[in-house]
Amino acid sequence: MLIDRPLLFALQGSEHYATRVAQRLGCQLALHEERDYKCRPLASVNGREVVVFHSLYGDDRQSANDKLCRLLFFCGALKDAGARHVQVVTPYLCYGRKDRRSQLQDPTITRYLATMIEACHVDRLVALEVHNPAAFDNAFRIPTWNLQCTELFAQHFARFVGDADVVAVSPDSGGAKRAEQFRRALERHLGRSVGSALMEKHRAHSTLTGTLLVGEVSGKTAIVFDDLISTGETLKHAGLACQKAGATRLFAAATHGLFTAGSHQFDKPLFEHIAISDSVPPFRLPPECVTQHLHILDTTGLIATLLAENGAWGTV
Amino acid sequence: MLIDRPLLFALQGSEHYATRVAQRLGCQLALHEERDYKCRPLASVNGREVVVFHSLYGDDRQSANDKLCRLLFFCGALKDAGARHVQVVTPYLCYGRKDRRSQLQDPTITRYLATMIEACHVDRLVALEVHNPAAFDNAFRIPTWNLQCTELFAQHFARFVGDADVVAVSPDSGGAKRAEQFRRALERHLGRSVGSALMEKHRAHSTLTGTLLVGEVSGKTAIVFDDLISTGETLKHAGLACQKAGATRLFAAATHGLFTAGSHQFDKPLFEHIAISDSVPPFRLPPECVTQHLHILDTTGLIATLLAENGAWGTV
Amino acid sequence: MLIDRPLLFALQGSEHYATRVAQRLGCQLALHEERDYKCRPLASVNGREVVVFHSLYGDDRQSANDKLCRLLFFCGALKDAGARHVQVVTPYLCYGRKDRRSQLQDPTITRYLATMIEACHVDRLVALEVHNPAAFDNAFRIPTWNLQCTELFAQHFARFVGDADVVAVSPDSGGAKRAEQFRRALERHLGRSVGSALMEKHRAHSTLTGTLLVGEVSGKTAIVFDDLISTGETLKHAGLACQKAGATRLFAAATHGLFTAGSHQFDKPLFEHIAISDSVPPFRLPPECVTQHLHILDTTGLIATLLAENGAWGTV
Amino acid sequence: MLIDRPLLFALQGSEHYATRVAQRLGCQLALHEERDYKCRPLASVNGREVVVFHSLYGDDRQSANDKLCRLLFFCGALKDAGARHVQVVTPYLCYGRKDRRSQLQDPTITRYLATMIEACHVDRLVALEVHNPAAFDNAFRIPTWNLQCTELFAQHFARFVGDADVVAVSPDSGGAKRAEQFRRALERHLGRSVGSALMEKHRAHSTLTGTLLVGEVSGKTAIVFDDLISTGETLKHAGLACQKAGATRLFAAATHGLFTAGSHQFDKPLFEHIAISDSVPPFRLPPECVTQHLHILDTTGLIATLLAENGAWGTV
Amino acid sequence: MLIDRPLLFALQGSEHYATRVAQRLGCQLALHEERDYKCRPLASVNGREVVVFHSLYGDDRQSANDKLCRLLFFCGALKDAGARHVQVVTPYLCYGRKDRRSQLQDPTITRYLATMIEACHVDRLVALEVHNPAAFDNAFRIPTWNLQCTELFAQHFARFVGDADVVAVSPDSGGAKRAEQFRRALERHLGRSVGSALMEKHRAHSTLTGTLLVGEVSGKTAIVFDDLISTGETLKHAGLACQKAGATRLFAAATHGLFTAGSHQFDKPLFEHIAISDSVPPFRLPPECVTQHLHILDTTGLIATLLAENGAWGTV
Amino acid sequence: MLIDRPLLFALQGSEHYATRVAQRLGCQLALHEERDYKCRPLASVNGREVVVFHSLYGDDRQSANDKLCRLLFFCGALKDAGARHVQVVTPYLCYGRKDRRSQLQDPTITRYLATMIEACHVDRLVALEVHNPAAFDNAFRIPTWNLQCTELFAQHFARFVGDADVVAVSPDSGGAKRAEQFRRALERHLGRSVGSALMEKHRAHSTLTGTLLVGEVSGKTAIVFDDLISTGETLKHAGLACQKAGATRLFAAATHGLFTAGSHQFDKPLFEHIAISDSVPPFRLPPECVTQHLHILDTTGLIATLLAENGAWGTV
Repeated sequence: MLIDRPLLFALQGSEHYATRVAQRLGCQLALHEERDYKCRPLASVNGREVVVFHSLYGDDRQSANDKLCRLLFFCGALKDAGARHVQVVTPYLCYGRKDRRSQLQDPTITRYLATMIEACHVDRLVALEVHNPAAFDNAFRIPTWNLQCTELFAQHFARFVGDADVVAVSPDSGGAKRAEQFRRALERHLGRSVGSALMEKHRAHSTLTGTLLVGEVSGKTAIVFDDLISTGETLKHAGLACQKAGATRLFAAATHGLFTAGSHQFDKPLFEHIAISDSVPPFRLPPECVTQHLHILDTTGLIATLLAENGAWGTV
Repeated sequence: MLIDRPLLFALQGSEHYATRVAQRLGCQLALHEERDYKCRPLASVNGREVVVFHSLYGDDRQSANDKLCRLLFFCGALKDAGARHVQVVTPYLCYGRKDRRSQLQDPTITRYLATMIEACHVDRLVALEVHNPAAFDNAFRIPTWNLQCTELFAQHFARFVGDADVVAVSPDSGGAKRAEQFRRALERHLGRSVGSALMEKHRAHSTLTGTLLVGEVSGKTAIVFDDLISTGETLKHAGLACQKAGATRLFAAATHGLFTAGSHQFDKPLFEHIAISDSVPPFRLPPECVTQHLHILDTTGLIATLLAENGAWGTV
Repeated sequence: MLIDRPLLFALQGSEHYATRVAQRLGCQLALHEERDYKCRPLASVNGREVVVFHSLYGDDRQSANDKLCRLLFFCGALKDAGARHVQVVTPYLCYGRKDRRSQLQDPTITRYLATMIEACHVDRLVALEVHNPAAFDNAFRIPTWNLQCTELFAQHFARFVGDADVVAVSPDSGGAKRAEQFRRALERHLGRSVGSALMEKHRAHSTLTGTLLVGEVSGKTAIVFDDLISTGETLKHAGLACQKAGATRLFAAATHGLFTAGSHQFDKPLFEHIAISDSVPPFRLPPECVTQHLHILDTTGLIATLLAENGAWGTV
Repeated sequence: MLIDRPLLFALQGSEHYATRVAQRLGCQLALHEERDYKCRPLASVNGREVVVFHSLYGDDRQSANDKLCRLLFFCGALKDAGARHVQVVTPYLCYGRKDRRSQLQDPTITRYLATMIEACHVDRLVALEVHNPAAFDNAFRIPTWNLQCTELFAQHFARFVGDADVVAVSPDSGGAKRAEQFRRALERHLGRSVGSALMEKHRAHSTLTGTLLVGEVSGKTAIVFDDLISTGETLKHAGLACQKAGATRLFAAATHGLFTAGSHQFDKPLFEHIAISDSVPPFRLPPECVTQHLHILDTTGLIATLLAENGAWGTV
Repeated sequence: MLIDRPLLFALQGSEHYATRVAQRLGCQLALHEERDYKCRPLASVNGREVVVFHSLYGDDRQSANDKLCRLLFFCGALKDAGARHVQVVTPYLCYGRKDRRSQLQDPTITRYLATMIEACHVDRLVALEVHNPAAFDNAFRIPTWNLQCTELFAQHFARFVGDADVVAVSPDSGGAKRAEQFRRALERHLGRSVGSALMEKHRAHSTLTGTLLVGEVSGKTAIVFDDLISTGETLKHAGLACQKAGATRLFAAATHGLFTAGSHQFDKPLFEHIAISDSVPPFRLPPECVTQHLHILDTTGLIATLLAENGAWGTV
Repeated sequence: MLIDRPLLFALQGSEHYATRVAQRLGCQLALHEERDYKCRPLASVNGREVVVFHSLYGDDRQSANDKLCRLLFFCGALKDAGARHVQVVTPYLCYGRKDRRSQLQDPTITRYLATMIEACHVDRLVALEVHNPAAFDNAFRIPTWNLQCTELFAQHFARFVGDADVVAVSPDSGGAKRAEQFRRALERHLGRSVGSALMEKHRAHSTLTGTLLVGEVSGKTAIVFDDLISTGETLKHAGLACQKAGATRLFAAATHGLFTAGSHQFDKPLFEHIAISDSVPPFRLPPECVTQHLHILDTTGLIATLLAENGAWGTV
């Protein structure tokens, strides 16, 4: 039975993404039925390797919780029906920002999420660019993959920066490691040095001076790099600081573009463009805004490659 | 430490219900903070017995999934913070209607719900009038209580039926046991016999004749009894059949009044009134409709009594 | 190693059933040793897919508990010896009738059974016609199959009823869904409509009138359909009611024929014949009684088909 | 709630034993209902500490498996009903003799038993004189107590042996440690040295010479000491060897007297008397045989003392 | 039984620390026996709340692994012997630095540590100043406490800095949050503003410029703040950078002083003194070095306070 | 993917052993990196069957605990990285001598070891000649293999004993079963009878007479057979007793040669030679001592055969 190819399912809202992964793997999505939270596979899954796609962002039809529950119930049904191995692919994994106790009696939601996923007998999880890799690596007791998109972004920006001096900017100290990975990847793609800078919360001589841009950006092309755009305020602050410090060109990049505050920030665009991935479609932005201001990078190749290496397509 | 009284928490939307339980127990709700899905107790829970209230119906602010996830994350935080024992009270427990596999590869959502609740280390669950007690009893591996409201409803209707002959009507064969329990309780309260009837899907001589009212209701007061009002269509069919069969007065009762189709059904009211419990507030109905057509029974006494017997207040 | 065929074992008392399944699959039973509760496989099971057959009815040599324990211990030994996957087939699964709490502090034995089976590392369970599918679906956290025999019975009776009007009768309201499935299957086999009736506990006008036959059977061929014959009293009541209501021919059917009260009920046979399955051999009845009154349907084809589809024979 | 005393239950066949323990603790057995395998507590167990007694030997009404299943189902019901802590006392614990793999693919039944007991949420187990303490200590992952009866037996025989030289005899090498514990206890009670001997399977010079008595018994009072009397053959062989070797008086002792071969061995009594404990009533022997040949030692004091120390009665 | 006070045990090497906690709580350490990896409590633990102390640093007698295994085996013995609740206090918790996968196929040792601790049935863990709180919070599924020492250090330095301007320096970006907490605590204790600075790996204009001190320290008192001193190189680099940048006075602080490279770094002392906690005794340093260069802060008050609040002493 | 051959890894100190197994299987060890306790596979393990070798004896570089922890962390990393199945081979498994509670509140370390190994998701364990098979069989809940070396030793000694009468001697009663297995194997290899003897702790007539040699060795070749040589005292006592009783030639054998007391015992060699296995290299003995007094038997054939049968090489 093991020589069958895996079955790929995509829940409502993630069909487009999954279809593109399937095409790369040379197969089609398997059929399922989805009536509210009641989902069931229509293709027979008994003894099969199964991959389920669902990007867990909230939209106007379903909250992130709605998508999570629907995903978990579907995985439960797959295992009950005899699926041998269920692998979940979440281009965007929710709750990544509540990953530790910062106040007394705080929740650690990344871990609760892990236990719920495990309770529904999911065998593996693949996520793109999680917010806190240390939290993620510790939360799950099933095998997980955290795919990083730095390479994709580096490849993208190498085509835009020409011969200018470039500096990779982290918009806060928590993202310093991520921006550094991007900087190195960009160096490899450009074949020359790339500088680094970061926004730092900083205080001097008894007055609070707010965040400060650390590193040299004057006369350079600055690329602000983050994992996630929520309202966009963080990027904006970093962009303004770079501008003020004399950066000549400004770009921004983030894997997950949620744009929860809508298109407002594009009224006076600060960046030449913002590169995001296709993990979350920019449904909150008007189409023309997307066309003008965003470059959307395709991550389905990353996923397809991993799935193929994962063994799922190893013998076919 | 065990001589401390339990702490009672209520998540957003369930405060009113919980406060009334707390009053009966002579205490107040403990404080917590609830920012989106991030909830944390403000009162110190270390070593304490804790009770959390949340009625898991969807409304216009939060879906049932939203409420479930928030509840689970809060319970996780309670246990992480050292709560000795966490007891959840769900006046309305969601997903009760997907309790078995009726089609190939169907999910069994009641069970997945149970595993998720257990994954977040909830120690006990108290629910009101679950849809399928056999499914509920088997799904959970932690102690659970399924409180039945038949007694409350019997007590209520004993005051309305006068000396007339009364018959308890089940609107489908799945609810026959529940209606029978109500019938017996009503007999006890009235001190005289109460008849039974049920709506039966039934076929005769090669033609589909649809549902049929079985049992004698002619000239009697009929009380249609169910666990849950969703759109209200089921009750309506039963009411019409009773009417047609000569019932002189019509009442209806159901523990959980969801009224998902809104107030439409009350345009031409069929029943003198419908009795529901306070497990789900009738937020989809206009206030005057509630006033005119519904009687809402208070179940907080049932819960308070159970909690007191549960040992939580046993030593105080 | 995965290209090996599964090994089939049958414990004492279930060899005959299992041998017939094995024949359909074109293989033989593997050898094992069984000394009292100490059983061990003789064929090497390391890395193998294994199927174990045991029908868990009590007889004069072993109680249902004896068979259950022996089965569990054998499965434990299989897994200890490295069996990759252990699938259990129980043509008759015990304890199905204690599937919910009907009284205070009642056990939920179906669930305890599930936890014990899981504790011995059984990977899958296949059962025939369980008593309460909702209880069964919720109790187990391993994949399970509940094979229904309605199709077999419909096929059987289609050969006996000629051109007469036929009605499928459920002997109680709990079995209404099951009888309805049978009715539909029979319609498909006969190519014409089949009526339905059911026995209903019912009360009218302040006197208890006992059970009542609901539905039209007069002048028709009635087939009483149940999952299990214990003493036979339930079938008898339904048969008598049909007779009294003018049914012209009477048949009965039930998947599991336990006949715990012996042959007594056949002294004055009510039914032309009773169809049962081979899940439980009618060892409590004298051979002539079996010959005259029973038709025993072969379910091994159902099991063999499922096992083949289960992947076990998928690559051979 | 914790200041309530524990509730004591005894399942069918173990009432007499449990009642005597209860008397020592100054309390009474709690009520339960036991209809076949369906048992439920009648006393409310919610939040209570509970102790359940059941000696798991097979008799003519119930096999050991029957008793085990009934016990497990009852414990499941106790926990479902909210019992805080369930402690099981098995004066005789079954399956002790299949405690390791002695042949290829053998079961390890002691471990399977442990997993089944844990699956039903038993919190603790107390057993008397288990067959293989190393197997027992490793099999269970809940706290267990293995109460040894050597002290009781030593106390008993100290009253019978007068001033004679005494030797403690182990009937096989597996029981050497147990016999040695008895020997030391007897020395303490007698205030003088006690010798040791054991039956050894032994071979010399190319011929099989069978078992051999090792140690000096000539002219002494020999007490053969074992954990369990099954058919009685083992004791008999040891007794005959001692007799042949010149022992002047012969006694035997074993905690669990099963006497599975009946009274046959007492036709020509070899021992002045055999001391057993009350863990298994000698129901297979005629009363006069019991009176003449057995001394039955009361172990309920051991159990009561442990329960009291266990904390169950610590606060009263 | 719950009114008994908890029992406190300390394994070899942690007696001194634990004794001081016990004194604060007004009790004594309970006795145990420790022969190589075989440890057992001598005080009876049945039904008791137990606290075990062990600081998991390697020394010349036992490696960290040795101490961990001994601790786990001891906890296993406590639970087997019936301890109701086992709480482990590790002033220094090992393996904190391998908390995420930084390379392909890397281990996540913090999580494996958590599963091993849970496997031995430890109920709670209290640690001081863990390296990565996000990793720690996600790794464990039992309640844990990560006690932070910032307050202690702030209190300490408030006595040393006089009226000078003070700046809290993080020696790397990973420790920025920790240093910020210290800065705020110090502000509270001094009643005036305290500045911040951090060492940042940073690159500018195509040349690697190494780490850079970000923030103003010139003319100020700089306190370098970290969680752990391993070889001491990290602190040294930060100190030199502060010196070069014109800091007038230099101090350093770290909770765990391992000093794995010995006293070498004190040959030319850079800091007026280094403040560490007593979580790890400075056994690798000569006594005079300790006297001259270290201030060791007592953390036993933190632990004692938590244990008292934890409920362990709540009723006495 | 399943047609790939398993990957074999050996941790530091076990490379030599593992390499020889690999050679027999016709493959090479896979690469890994091992920096202190941080180990990670370099070969990609996703979807692969993996075997890890580590002999868990302490030496001057790593204690047994160090090796155990390193092994567990490596297995954790393998599973995290997607290894389908991880099988551990421990030629010497540590802690075997603390396998039961011999004193009050004693640990059962074999069981704790099992839970820790299971917590790190090891799927199978293969060990050579464990100390107490009953403890081992009960402690683990994953499949385990305890390979016995009796056959190897019998084969070895058959070449040395010539035509003399031979007797197999157990140095204590606990090892009687093991020595008996060796005796039978030797009989098969020699084609003639082999006698048995054992050292017995024994007392006679009120004086402690110490251990006694039971069985006839006079004029014979005695082979003392044990599982493990620790200090060597046990073997020495048995050898001296045989010598005194007139044995003409003396040999000894034990699977695991730890020689914790060094070479001291070989100053006046008692045995012609001692045969040990290669499970533990005799690193505590000087090379000439090894050459003169030891014969080291190769067990890698046993392991390779099992692995091949285990299915790992079954399809290649």
